[in-house]
Amino acid sequence: MSKYDIIVLGSGPGGYVAAIRASQLGFKTAIIEKENLGGICLNWGCIPTKALLKSAQVFEYLKHAEDYGLKVKDAEHDFDAVVKRSRGVAEGMSNGVKFLMKKNKIDVIDGFGKLKTGKKVDVDGKEYSADHIIVATGARSRELPSLPQDGKKVIGYRQAMSLETQPKKMIVVGSGAIGVEFAYFYNSMGTEVTIVEYMPKIVPVEDDEVSKQLERSFKKNGIKVMTSSEVLSVDTSGEGVKATVKTKKGEEILEADVVLSAVGIKSNIENIGLEDVGIAVDRDKILVNDYYQTNIPGYYAIGDVTPGQALAHVASAEGILCVEKIAGMHVEALDYGNIPGCTYCTPEVASVGLTEAQAKEQGYDIKVGKFPFSASGKASAGGNKDGFVKVIFDAKYGEWLGCHMIGAGVTDMIAEAVLGRKLETTGHEVLKAVHPHPTMSEAVMEAVADAYDEVIHL
Amino acid sequence: MSKYDIIVLGSGPGGYVAAIRASQLGFKTAIIEKENLGGICLNWGCIPTKALLKSAQVFEYLKHAEDYGLKVKDAEHDFDAVVKRSRGVAEGMSNGVKFLMKKNKIDVIDGFGKLKTGKKVDVDGKEYSADHIIVATGARSRELPSLPQDGKKVIGYRQAMSLETQPKKMIVVGSGAIGVEFAYFYNSMGTEVTIVEYMPKIVPVEDDEVSKQLERSFKKNGIKVMTSSEVLSVDTSGEGVKATVKTKKGEEILEADVVLSAVGIKSNIENIGLEDVGIAVDRDKILVNDYYQTNIPGYYAIGDVTPGQALAHVASAEGILCVEKIAGMHVEALDYGNIPGCTYCTPEVASVGLTEAQAKEQGYDIKVGKFPFSASGKASAGGNKDGFVKVIFDAKYGEWLGCHMIGAGVTDMIAEAVLGRKLETTGHEVLKAVHPHPTMSEAVMEAVADAYDEVIHL
Repeated sequence: MSKYDIIVLGSGPGGYVAAIRASQLGFKTAIIEKENLGGICLNWGCIPTKALLKSAQVFEYLKHAEDYGLKVKDAEHDFDAVVKRSRGVAEGMSNGVKFLMKKNKIDVIDGFGKLKTGKKVDVDGKEYSADHIIVATGARSRELPSLPQDGKKVIGYRQAMSLETQPKKMIVVGSGAIGVEFAYFYNSMGTEVTIVEYMPKIVPVEDDEVSKQLERSFKKNGIKVMTSSEVLSVDTSGEGVKATVKTKKGEEILEADVVLSAVGIKSNIENIGLEDVGIAVDRDKILVNDYYQTNIPGYYAIGDVTPGQALAHVASAEGILCVEKIAGMHVEALDYGNIPGCTYCTPEVASVGLTEAQAKEQGYDIKVGKFPFSASGKASAGGNKDGFVKVIFDAKYGEWLGCHMIGAGVTDMIAEAVLGRKLETTGHEVLKAVHPHPTMSEAVMEAVADAYDEVIHL
Repeated sequence: MSKYDIIVLGSGPGGYVAAIRASQLGFKTAIIEKENLGGICLNWGCIPTKALLKSAQVFEYLKHAEDYGLKVKDAEHDFDAVVKRSRGVAEGMSNGVKFLMKKNKIDVIDGFGKLKTGKKVDVDGKEYSADHIIVATGARSRELPSLPQDGKKVIGYRQAMSLETQPKKMIVVGSGAIGVEFAYFYNSMGTEVTIVEYMPKIVPVEDDEVSKQLERSFKKNGIKVMTSSEVLSVDTSGEGVKATVKTKKGEEILEADVVLSAVGIKSNIENIGLEDVGIAVDRDKILVNDYYQTNIPGYYAIGDVTPGQALAHVASAEGILCVEKIAGMHVEALDYGNIPGCTYCTPEVASVGLTEAQAKEQGYDIKVGKFPFSASGKASAGGNKDGFVKVIFDAKYGEWLGCHMIGAGVTDMIAEAVLGRKLETTGHEVLKAVHPHPTMSEAVMEAVADAYDEVIHL
């Protein structure tokens, strides 16, 4: 039986990052993966979708070349080639993880791992033991009883990024990041897309003004948006799919080639031996403390199987922290209130902290500032005038409660707000940090200025 | 004679921003402009060049559409339309400043202003007085004796952004931001471009590794780069231009249609009455203290006419600070060591703080970290693998001495480093600020991790 210091179960962005950090800290480490190194994020999530979206964005440039003084004839997309490029990017990244495992001398064990008592893991009949076992098995597309996925007409994100034929009509159920990214992608490629969202607004976790702006942009680009609506059932017996949708105005039947179910995720906590070991679970999540220790000593859990936000960067941060704590380092617990969220459709959406509604609910007396990209020189020059930056400060102590962005490149701009908030900046420190001109990032400075009635360009 | 609280001479990004802040603080304000509101930056600098560069970048996408699974026939550019778009963007921004002046109740006085003693300004024969006069007359393209600009065959940046015919061959003298931006633009449009740089490297103020990377990218894209070279003379007597260039290997004669002189700027300090009033000048710059007061009470100077970096965002920051000090507010002097610089060619360049060479020269014991975009998932997905983020920390106290970036979108990413440095962050605080995945901004976190031997993806 092979003995390790640390065994990680699952090689997604939680698991493989934890394994690398463990190896850096001198632990003899193994990682168990049942499918592809890199997990969903690299193979079926974050990365390949960004490749698809890039093709869509370039295609938009082709279609609007004249706006930039350029001319093209017959701008076309080759759906197969677009998908193939995306798969190639995913494959390259997965190979990258393979290289990192080798370089860090981490043993990669192929197979399905199952926890055993006594700090052991069984992988398809072979046993491994370790002083510390980290569960990082991630999650999969959640299935609604009313929307069973057959993988052909009713699909999840996995199939959505590798369809053999481009659907002519698609219904996207759910408008979180995954839903709106695919809605944007397929609409750009020429598919007729309808979003059905149960909540009264799309991207429901975002600030209300962001949701409104995105809905406006989507509608302008031809995406149909149905909010406060629910798919009651789907009929896949005919050639396409018929979805019965309950709206505020009554029931409606939508027809499409494919329904994409993007209604959230379900943790992979089944059949991995949690019950045998006695690890406590609450509904869909493994219970952990600030250092990702479960109730059973020697067993840890990170990433989508734990209660924090189900995001790749959260999983990575948890993995690093979990291992650093095991190594006896002084670690500070992760601040789940300062986790950025990004959505990569056009316009992009990025946010961190409280929305205006949340800040009010929590009883804060707030100062709100907003700067539209329509007033930004860089945005004008780049043809990116859609969107804005909105900031929320606590009026009393000046704490930066929230930052909400929608527009070109904002997913790279949110890092400033994350770091500023971590460093407990005040608004005036942001204001007096000289932002380069002309950039989109000036909008952050101007939004803060707006909150304090010092905005220049409004 | 009209009397104001504050008169601003020049309406560039220093002047008009100072005027708006003055108006916000309750001052009766006028601004004097001899040409277009917004000055060089809006009309002949930052903004119209970014519009040209956007066209070039979109044209690159057209030319490389197949890389993204797309097809086009006959991708062409219409040089006139590209220039026209740029002029339109500039006009729109200038109208925006006009609107801001009106909204802020700032009197706009058209004409050439000349300072008089007794806190007066003469504008083409008409006199105005104010309690405070701010000189913000900016700068123009510097002319070398060996390279006299005739505006046709030997041109400055102004002509370069509004040529009627696209040159087939162009020599760009000087490789600061202006030089390399035009080199990239014209090369993208199909002009054969040669850069002649006096210093041993292009973008001479940047970190050595950034200069090397940019030279590599430029050469790959067909731009000829001659460093340690000097234009001794130009002969414009024939059909085109013949430039005699002294290189390390001897003299060489280059032929072109147009030579762009981009060898820096010259302050506009002539004929504006500085001598009459007795305002002290050192060589090309008006001398000011930390609050932009000249040696003569009531007279101030900001922007390119003062010794700080000749950058739009510096001018704006100085203008705001100058006016806030006049208003009696508590202001902190501008930290000229924390001013970001951006160059918007492809790949983009952005930096703040000390280069590695400067840090060593200044005697720091340093920790250097670097993360290449080739190892970034987002960069792979976006087809933006060129470039890197490099960070420099003081080994002893952990101060973030410098940050140097080259790659897609870095001009928007540098704000994080500016704010972090302003807030006196340590490397580990940057590391523990959770950057969203997958973004280009993760490269900042990873570069910092690399400096402390904690990098994950290398």
